Amino acid sequence: MPRLIDIARRAGVSEATVSRVLNGRAGVNDQTRQSVLDAARSLGRPMGPEALGGGPTIGVLVPDLDNQVFTAWAERIEAEAFERGASTLVALRARTVEREREILHRLLHAGASALIVISGHHAQQNGPVEHYREVTAAGAPLVLINGVREDLDAAFLSTDDDHAIRSVLTHLQDLGHQRVGLAVGDEHTWPVREKLRAFEDVTAVWAPDPQPVSFTDFSYAGGYEAARDLVGRGVTAIVCGSDVMAAGALEGVRSLGLTVPEDVSVVGYDDVFWAALTNPPLTTVRQAVTSIARAAVRAALAGGEQSRRPARTEVVVRPQLVSRGSTAAAPGTAGDRRAEPDREVESDRGMEPDRGGDGAASMGG
Amino acid sequence: MPRLIDIARRAGVSEATVSRVLNGRAGVNDQTRQSVLDAARSLGRPMGPEALGGGPTIGVLVPDLDNQVFTAWAERIEAEAFERGASTLVALRARTVEREREILHRLLHAGASALIVISGHHAQQNGPVEHYREVTAAGAPLVLINGVREDLDAAFLSTDDDHAIRSVLTHLQDLGHQRVGLAVGDEHTWPVREKLRAFEDVTAVWAPDPQPVSFTDFSYAGGYEAARDLVGRGVTAIVCGSDVMAAGALEGVRSLGLTVPEDVSVVGYDDVFWAALTNPPLTTVRQAVTSIARAAVRAALAGGEQSRRPARTEVVVRPQLVSRGSTAAAPGTAGDRRAEPDREVESDRGMEPDRGGDGAASMGG
Repeated sequence: MPRLIDIARRAGVSEATVSRVLNGRAGVNDQTRQSVLDAARSLGRPMGPEALGGGPTIGVLVPDLDNQVFTAWAERIEAEAFERGASTLVALRARTVEREREILHRLLHAGASALIVISGHHAQQNGPVEHYREVTAAGAPLVLINGVREDLDAAFLSTDDDHAIRSVLTHLQDLGHQRVGLAVGDEHTWPVREKLRAFEDVTAVWAPDPQPVSFTDFSYAGGYEAARDLVGRGVTAIVCGSDVMAAGALEGVRSLGLTVPEDVSVVGYDDVFWAALTNPPLTTVRQAVTSIARAAVRAALAGGEQSRRPARTEVVVRPQLVSRGSTAAAPGTAGDRRAEPDREVESDRGMEPDRGGDGAASMGG
Repeated sequence: MPRLIDIARRAGVSEATVSRVLNGRAGVNDQTRQSVLDAARSLGRPMGPEALGGGPTIGVLVPDLDNQVFTAWAERIEAEAFERGASTLVALRARTVEREREILHRLLHAGASALIVISGHHAQQNGPVEHYREVTAAGAPLVLINGVREDLDAAFLSTDDDHAIRSVLTHLQDLGHQRVGLAVGDEHTWPVREKLRAFEDVTAVWAPDPQPVSFTDFSYAGGYEAARDLVGRGVTAIVCGSDVMAAGALEGVRSLGLTVPEDVSVVGYDDVFWAALTNPPLTTVRQAVTSIARAAVRAALAGGEQSRRPARTEVVVRPQLVSRGSTAAAPGTAGDRRAEPDREVESDRGMEPDRGGDGAASMGG
């Protein structure tokens, strides 16, 4: 993939002009535009439809679709892009850094003028980021969701894990829980480290002993295993890193002959579609999917506007605790659940779990 | 998009040779290959990576990601393609025929050598298919999931809805139900018509009056509304066209002060991840996601091999009834649930709902 500077030199214009042409912006005369397109083509730069007059394409890389919150993000990103006259192309599962690099190039080759990467290698501690630099050097705005790296000119979007964990722990403390466990996946990933840091910060003042943490993985089986481990270590409440884990935790608690929420409270994370459908319905943290998708699309489409390379930005989006049936007063406490002082705690008893979704017209399989 | 015949004429070779070159097959000498590539380029035919020596790309069009069975298909298609050295690019939600056409061209432009369309306009009764002919005329194998059209040279893959509905009705009849309702979405779509036909066929011999059908949509709200309608018409069991609908039906039944499965049995369709997690867990029809994905990828990658245009094929994949807690003996019957004679009825009481999935290593949100 040729860099902007290579094309600029070949065409004898500035990088900013190259960027304007490749992103289909106005303000470049036809002769200059043509010489930039010729130079870009001769260097093998694929032409996106926006350079040829159509709407832009945003490439989206999604780690997997098993966690329905990623699905929800992909869906909302497409909807937000559509509203702005843009299209999306989605690639799945970059299993290795080499493959992630290949997919990003493939998306650019396919005409994407900007890339949004959800939980890519940027989300892994010390994960390599050189392939992201190739993207920004080529002038394509890069939006990275779930994880911040200091050394990249990209837009970073994350959920405020610190706020989320603090809200959950306040909720559990209000219910009288004094020994709480955290169930998460690989500790070398950004969302886990953020949650862990907040969990340790808050609970450090609860008791002299640290509260237990179980590192398994973000799956049903991982939640099942973590719940059995944490209950064995004496917790009365389990905070999970995803709703899928929490679903497994419900079953893990039950497998020990205990009941949710009477014996053990369970909290999820994400608020996916089915979180309101489990038995009992999950108290969870609702990720602000629409806000994140909108910010991601805005960053993707704005990036190429004025500058030759995207500016570095960071946006942290605040999620919301949703209180349902899987949390209750700790065993042996008075059981009188205090009124929640945190106004962001929303009690969800509605009939419609796909509130805010686009599900009304979905087709049957 | 130039047709194979245009490229063949320009290069002075056969269409079969053009197809071989564009699909990266062996058996064409270098000079001929080069002249085909030159002709294709001069006519504006985008070059997929397989023509340039890399692995092929399969374009996948998914109607939406709200129904998790579509997500599961996209995921499995990617996995099957990956095993065969191919990549996938996914586009979402072709809202109109014009947009579906634009997306298919965009995917071809992005280098896709074959296209898989899930529940596209081919699944709508009398939906236009001219844009599909453009794809096959360009020599790209086309795989259409959920719906068969007589007038297209494509590979058609469908779930055996007839078998599914017959299995469900046998199960309900064994449980003593005599008045059963069907809850589905738009009756002008292929999967609905297939289910309706089987439902009417089987139940025609049950009673002189036809059994009630409620047409709403494939959403939670649609299931809720249909359940209230059907219970009002005296049914003791509701067969839903998707698990999302069935989840709504559970709540719809409850909203009338009735209990599932004691008063009303509810059956879903798809067996998505969370179908085992609802209260009670859903009896449902498990779509053979892996079989369908494998057949789709095989058809996508094989199509261009020998012929200048893909041959017409039809594959119908048989799903499996999974019996869980949302179905039970009809009220007022002996309640002794007969042993299921249908060996395909699988009783699912396992701990792991994501059996067969790829969830173990999924990342947290």
